[in-house]
Amino acid sequence: MASRINGFPEQAVITEVGPRDGLQSEPGFVPTDDKIALIRALIDAGLRRFEVTSFVSPRAVPQMRDAAEVMAVFRDRDDLHLTALVPNARGAEAAIEAGVDAMVLFASASESHNLKNVNRSRAESLQGFAKIARLAEGSDVHLQGAIATAFGCPFEGNVDVQAVVDQAKAYRDLGMDYITLGDTTGMATPALVAERVGALRSFLPETDLALHFHNTRGVGLACAYAGLSLGVTHYESSIGGLGGCPFVPRATGNVATEDLVYLCHESGVETGTDLGRLIDAAHLAERIVGRELPGQIMKAGPRLQTASMDSVRTANG
Amino acid sequence: MASRINGFPEQAVITEVGPRDGLQSEPGFVPTDDKIALIRALIDAGLRRFEVTSFVSPRAVPQMRDAAEVMAVFRDRDDLHLTALVPNARGAEAAIEAGVDAMVLFASASESHNLKNVNRSRAESLQGFAKIARLAEGSDVHLQGAIATAFGCPFEGNVDVQAVVDQAKAYRDLGMDYITLGDTTGMATPALVAERVGALRSFLPETDLALHFHNTRGVGLACAYAGLSLGVTHYESSIGGLGGCPFVPRATGNVATEDLVYLCHESGVETGTDLGRLIDAAHLAERIVGRELPGQIMKAGPRLQTASMDSVRTANG
Repeated sequence: MASRINGFPEQAVITEVGPRDGLQSEPGFVPTDDKIALIRALIDAGLRRFEVTSFVSPRAVPQMRDAAEVMAVFRDRDDLHLTALVPNARGAEAAIEAGVDAMVLFASASESHNLKNVNRSRAESLQGFAKIARLAEGSDVHLQGAIATAFGCPFEGNVDVQAVVDQAKAYRDLGMDYITLGDTTGMATPALVAERVGALRSFLPETDLALHFHNTRGVGLACAYAGLSLGVTHYESSIGGLGGCPFVPRATGNVATEDLVYLCHESGVETGTDLGRLIDAAHLAERIVGRELPGQIMKAGPRLQTASMDSVRTANG
Repeated sequence: MASRINGFPEQAVITEVGPRDGLQSEPGFVPTDDKIALIRALIDAGLRRFEVTSFVSPRAVPQMRDAAEVMAVFRDRDDLHLTALVPNARGAEAAIEAGVDAMVLFASASESHNLKNVNRSRAESLQGFAKIARLAEGSDVHLQGAIATAFGCPFEGNVDVQAVVDQAKAYRDLGMDYITLGDTTGMATPALVAERVGALRSFLPETDLALHFHNTRGVGLACAYAGLSLGVTHYESSIGGLGGCPFVPRATGNVATEDLVYLCHESGVETGTDLGRLIDAAHLAERIVGRELPGQIMKAGPRLQTASMDSVRTANG
C-alpha cells in the first residue's frame, strides 16, 4: 500500500450498500440466492459492514420482499455489522425480529424531497422515528440516521447547512450516534463536504459521521478525497457502482466500492479489503443485473497490472 | 461560483486536447468540418488553448491528415493558443508552416513505453527533439514538452520520480519552459501527484507545469483536486472525455473537460468557460463520434438544474 497522505486517517470503514441501495432500483426481482451470493463475495473480499436490505412493504418495494430470508443467512455471524433501512414501526418490528445490528432511519434535509420520497413532512418523519426509537429501547438493536439530500435537493437546489445540522440534532435527540450524510442526487462537492463536516463536528462532536457520495457529476471520489483529508473515517458505497440516480436515466449513482477502496489504498488508508476480490465481486454484480456497471477499476484492473508489449496498440501519448 | 477553497489557485488554465488526443484514436476518419465545428463550439464555450492536431505521417495516423486544413481556419485568431503534436523534423516544418503557437514534443518517462509508442529509445527521442529545437529557433514557435507515463507505465509498473525529473531537465535544456505530465494509462493517484509536482517544482522552479489525467481508474478528478490543492494552474482535458485508453477496451481515457470545469467552479477556481456551453459541445462531440462518451456532468446536467416533483420516481434515499 502507498504511504499515507498527511492528515488522512489510518483506516477507512466502508459500509457496503449495494445489496439494499444498489439493488433496490433494479426493475426485475433479483433472486434471493443471487443477493446472498453477492454478499458472500463481498465478505470474502473483506467487507464487514453491510446495509443488507430494507424492511418495507413488499407491495411498495417488491425487490426487498426477501429481507428476512437474506438476514437469516448472515444474522449469526458476529464478525458482521448488518443494518437495514426501516421506514416505520411495522418495519422496525420485522427488522428487530430478523436480527439486524442497527436500523437505519432516513429523512431528507429538504422538505420537498422528503414529501416526494416518503409522502410525509420532515416533522412527521421525526414523529415516526420516535415510535421506532421506543421499540428499539427494548432490544439491543442500535439506531442510525441517514440524511438524504444533505448536499442539495433536486427540487429546491441548495440545501442550507443549518437544515442538515438541525436534522442531525433531532436524530441525536432520538438516540442516534451514527449519522450518514447522503448525496442523494450527486450534488456534493468538496467545498460542501468541508462545510458540512465542519458544522456537524462543531455541533455534534460525539456523533460518528459517515459520508455517502454519488458520482452523478463525476466528483464522487474527489468528495471522498476531501472527506479523507478532513479525517472522516466512515463511508458508504456500492459494489460496481450498483444503483442509479432516480432523476437522470443515463447518470451514474453510487460511488463504486472498489474505486473508493483503490483511492484509499493509494492514499495509504487501510480498508481491510482485497481490491482484486472486490473487482471479482463487482463482475459478479454485473452478471447478476445483466448489464455494465459504472465502476472504473473493474474495467481497467489494478494499477500495477502490467500489459505485455505485444498486446497493445498505442496512440502517441 | 462557489467560494474558493483554501490554497486553491484563483484560476485554472485548461488546454482542450479533444481535437487531437481525443479524436486521434477514433477508428473512422472524422470529417474536417466536424473537427472545425467542434473547435468552434469549444471556443464559444470560452476555451482558448487547444491541442488542435498533430503533424504526423498521414499513413501512420490518417485521422490527422487534415492538420494543415484545421490549423488554417484558426491560425489568425490572436486570442487563441494553438499547439500541435510533432514527432520529428518533417512534422515540425509542417507545423511551423501551418502557424502553430507551440509544438508539443513527447516522449515517455519509461523506456519500454517510448519504444512501443514511437519505436525509439528515450535518448533517440531527445536527439530528435534537438533537431526540432534548431528548426524552431528561426521561428516564433515555442516548444512544449509532454512526458508520457509520468505516473506509471503499463509495461514496467511504477515509474521512479527521478526518471520524470531527468526527462523534464532534458526538456528544459532544449528550451522547453512548459511541461505536461501525462497520465497515459490512468496510473496517477493523488499521492503521486503530490510527489511529482513537489519534485519538479524543487528541481525546475521556472518551468510551467501542466497536468493531464485519465479517469481510467476513476480517480482522475481526485488527482485534479490534489493538483489544485497544490496550486497547480495548468490542466489538459478532453471534451466529453473523448479518447479512450489504448490498453483496455472498456476503460475510460481522458478526464472530461466539462467535469473538470465543474470541479473547478465548485471549488471557487475560475476557468473563463461556460459550463452549459461546454455541455453542449460535449453533446456535439457525442454526435460526431456516434456513441456515448464517459463525461458525467453532460448526462446529469449542472448542479442546480432542479427537477419538477412530478417528473421523477424516487427510491428511498
